[in-house]
Amino acid sequence: MKKAILIIQCPDQKGIVAEVSKFLYAYEGNILEVDQHVDEQMGMFFMRAAWELDSFSLAKDEIASRFRAEVGERFKMDFKLHFNFPKPRMAIFVSKLSHCLFDILGRHHAGQLDVDIPVVVSNHQSLKEIVQAFGIPFHYIPITPETKATAETKQLELMKTNRIDFVVLGRYMQILSAEFIRHFPNRIINIHHSFLPAFVGARPYHAAYERGVKIIGATAHYVTEELDAGPIIEQEVARVRHHNTVSELVQIGQDVEKVVLSKAIKYHIDRKVMPIKNKTVIFY
Amino acid sequence: MKKAILIIQCPDQKGIVAEVSKFLYAYEGNILEVDQHVDEQMGMFFMRAAWELDSFSLAKDEIASRFRAEVGERFKMDFKLHFNFPKPRMAIFVSKLSHCLFDILGRHHAGQLDVDIPVVVSNHQSLKEIVQAFGIPFHYIPITPETKATAETKQLELMKTNRIDFVVLGRYMQILSAEFIRHFPNRIINIHHSFLPAFVGARPYHAAYERGVKIIGATAHYVTEELDAGPIIEQEVARVRHHNTVSELVQIGQDVEKVVLSKAIKYHIDRKVMPIKNKTVIFY
Amino acid sequence: MKKAILIIQCPDQKGIVAEVSKFLYAYEGNILEVDQHVDEQMGMFFMRAAWELDSFSLAKDEIASRFRAEVGERFKMDFKLHFNFPKPRMAIFVSKLSHCLFDILGRHHAGQLDVDIPVVVSNHQSLKEIVQAFGIPFHYIPITPETKATAETKQLELMKTNRIDFVVLGRYMQILSAEFIRHFPNRIINIHHSFLPAFVGARPYHAAYERGVKIIGATAHYVTEELDAGPIIEQEVARVRHHNTVSELVQIGQDVEKVVLSKAIKYHIDRKVMPIKNKTVIFY
Amino acid sequence: MKKAILIIQCPDQKGIVAEVSKFLYAYEGNILEVDQHVDEQMGMFFMRAAWELDSFSLAKDEIASRFRAEVGERFKMDFKLHFNFPKPRMAIFVSKLSHCLFDILGRHHAGQLDVDIPVVVSNHQSLKEIVQAFGIPFHYIPITPETKATAETKQLELMKTNRIDFVVLGRYMQILSAEFIRHFPNRIINIHHSFLPAFVGARPYHAAYERGVKIIGATAHYVTEELDAGPIIEQEVARVRHHNTVSELVQIGQDVEKVVLSKAIKYHIDRKVMPIKNKTVIFY
Repeated sequence: MKKAILIIQCPDQKGIVAEVSKFLYAYEGNILEVDQHVDEQMGMFFMRAAWELDSFSLAKDEIASRFRAEVGERFKMDFKLHFNFPKPRMAIFVSKLSHCLFDILGRHHAGQLDVDIPVVVSNHQSLKEIVQAFGIPFHYIPITPETKATAETKQLELMKTNRIDFVVLGRYMQILSAEFIRHFPNRIINIHHSFLPAFVGARPYHAAYERGVKIIGATAHYVTEELDAGPIIEQEVARVRHHNTVSELVQIGQDVEKVVLSKAIKYHIDRKVMPIKNKTVIFY
Repeated sequence: MKKAILIIQCPDQKGIVAEVSKFLYAYEGNILEVDQHVDEQMGMFFMRAAWELDSFSLAKDEIASRFRAEVGERFKMDFKLHFNFPKPRMAIFVSKLSHCLFDILGRHHAGQLDVDIPVVVSNHQSLKEIVQAFGIPFHYIPITPETKATAETKQLELMKTNRIDFVVLGRYMQILSAEFIRHFPNRIINIHHSFLPAFVGARPYHAAYERGVKIIGATAHYVTEELDAGPIIEQEVARVRHHNTVSELVQIGQDVEKVVLSKAIKYHIDRKVMPIKNKTVIFY
Repeated sequence: MKKAILIIQCPDQKGIVAEVSKFLYAYEGNILEVDQHVDEQMGMFFMRAAWELDSFSLAKDEIASRFRAEVGERFKMDFKLHFNFPKPRMAIFVSKLSHCLFDILGRHHAGQLDVDIPVVVSNHQSLKEIVQAFGIPFHYIPITPETKATAETKQLELMKTNRIDFVVLGRYMQILSAEFIRHFPNRIINIHHSFLPAFVGARPYHAAYERGVKIIGATAHYVTEELDAGPIIEQEVARVRHHNTVSELVQIGQDVEKVVLSKAIKYHIDRKVMPIKNKTVIFY
Repeated sequence: MKKAILIIQCPDQKGIVAEVSKFLYAYEGNILEVDQHVDEQMGMFFMRAAWELDSFSLAKDEIASRFRAEVGERFKMDFKLHFNFPKPRMAIFVSKLSHCLFDILGRHHAGQLDVDIPVVVSNHQSLKEIVQAFGIPFHYIPITPETKATAETKQLELMKTNRIDFVVLGRYMQILSAEFIRHFPNRIINIHHSFLPAFVGARPYHAAYERGVKIIGATAHYVTEELDAGPIIEQEVARVRHHNTVSELVQIGQDVEKVVLSKAIKYHIDRKVMPIKNKTVIFY
């Protein structure tokens, strides 16, 4: 089904829901989902509405300007209009660990992710064959401290050529430059293998083991220039015990990582994530 | 804050949200919460809206008739209008087990349940002192097979005298008659100590032990004439292992029971539960 | 590391742990894991011990007879001796749904399952290419009501030729005959898509939707002749809400299924599951 | 049932389990529970064994010296012998928040905590009546910055007079001095309202809100001089969403806090917690 999705934020005041729903009704929009949220502290209103496009009486390319004129300007709205077609284009960056990658490819193969995956990028060759068996092009771009800048240039070109909308780091073991990140603001999703803000940085399972926690976790977040500090999209945890070694923590944690990352990707594809400063509103 | 809460169900069609929000806006309603749900299978629309009453330009007792005239009739709505004052009046029925009762009393004492508790009814005396220490009247109504009918008559009188809105069975070990239940349709909340529909009926922890399940649970539901078959409000589970005895299952399960029951009570008080046939829509 | 694993059950009495550990110590066994369990109701004692084989002073093929003579007979033990080599040989049966299969193949590829997978059997061809990309032979054995018996004969031959130790049904949509099951007592692991004993049989997600449960689940169990009634190995659940459609339940549930099934497989491979009548002791 | 509980730690080597179980068997100990753990990194062995005392052929006050002579010295064991009688004596420190206190009192009233509670100490009077309704003496010791030292002296005297074995801080809003802590090494259990090490210090729910986490938690730990850095005994979490206000986080979190704290108390009473440096082995 062809859908339009409208994401709105504006200063909170009375009548917003009434005017937005009146607009959709006026043009015969069959509303599929509508969610709103008011942040009392910030005095801000947030809304997401999705409706069927086929029966809507405005043409696809008229909607934004009409909405701005009839509703948006009056409420000083910052809004974005999305459609669920063409599908968004997602790149996956990986290193050697396969669990997140295979999980995403499996879901995509089963038709559960409404996304195109024109490119998998890796600084290693080990996952090439299976990626290709799933019918996805695999790009090997090796990275050394010396070649890092050049490699990133190649990666960016690849993103451009493939018209990539957003990037997923599926346990990609390289830190992206601020320059790269600036090309994809709130459009790079990383999976960090701890329940942030605990255990920022490298080797969080080792840190969890040393601290003797009884629960480990994983966090999917948008990448910002500050390491592991971007807006959190999803988190999940698993129980561990004193007898679990670091390598058992790793294995238990990987099950959490892949579920968390896939949920975050799904929210992002469905335009259900709304980053606000350093947090996210998730309209699920 | 004084609130009005409107609960709507009607055949699904376009424009409902627009008209309802227009109505609230027209009378200067400051919307606090609004949720809607469409059941595609049934072709039904469900909605809950809460708004501030003080700044609303319709008088409290005008709202229902105006809403019916301006919106409700047109969409063939079945709606109910609630206010968060006076507080709903809740009776608690218990036997000997204290965990659910104490949990409710503790939350009420901490100001977390917006409800009056004019009466605790028990067929045993053992919990009397602590109930009274919380400042709640305790009524001892013993029950034997012979006196059951008389006892229920007394209970019903007590409900009437105390203008009870809804009843909570906090591990009350007697089965209520169909007659009693008819006085409180979808207004008796029971906690059953299994994840229904598994282990309906008596001694579910024993049954769980015998079956060798790895997870036990609890279910809060509205009481209907068919045992343990009413609309489910909330469920939760806990892991168990092969070495757990039945009495350990009981103890692990009680922690689940009390959390589930308190959540269900809270949803009910806040008018967030909407029973539809044998299911519930929960607007949380 | 080469390991021996001893699984014991016998009538409970004093001194068992002392004698077993004395035996292992006498032959210089470096104990890696030891767990015991007493079922008070049955008056039975259960134990699992794993130790390093390289430094053990008994030869691999002497251990069982010596243990029987020195300890086992005296305590009327029913015991089994396993080694973690050669690796057990696992067959996977699938139909069209890929989530469990891909999850198992991914873990195997990452070196997390200490098992050989000489054969994947399917009554459909759709998953062939990816299975082969993982380097696993794929056998297409179509099944119609008429050919079912013949197909099962072929499957059994395949099991025999490949010296299969145990079978995993990764959402295999055919019911195995009692004859087939008898070849693999407590050695066929099935994943059922409900938290048993709720929703036995076909279409459990539909049944869960109809009942309006707030939690769905999955159960890995050994297959016995009675449908969905065998010993439960592992269970897990996920929360759902009133707005989730049946197809959303399916998708949420699949994430649970694959984790539960993989855990059960792992326990089975590591000889941590001990089926006792219709239950399991899991020494994890 | 009268039980002896032996807690052992020593350098890891072969034969420990054999010798300990031989000792217990020699004196006709009916073993109820036995657990062991090897920390490979530290090269240390840990064990907990519980057995029936009535049928044991050594007198209660002979056990320790015999065990030392026959087993302990040989393996350089650091061991402690406990009995489940007389019951340990627990003090509870609280301020104004009642949820942890009422939860503990409710469990104690239901016979689920094998402990005596001779004293509840508070720097406020608000919870006095209900504590007393449970039959527990309540001591009001107000604290100001000026009187803090004097107040602590009074508290310590109260602990001494009541022969307190361990102290539970049930959301006690004062920081104990190093001097006080030194009297109860690994015998003061605190509940911190975050999943440590995230959100150390004051106002963790506010910090969680600001960071936009999707999961909040609680941690029970032994109090050491460094704030919120002692050995973790138990942790649990709960999901939250963008629309939850800080006060909702507080309420959701309190349900987690009380369950976590009660579990930690139970482990401590049953001598199942073994603090090792800054971590704990929990033999459950």
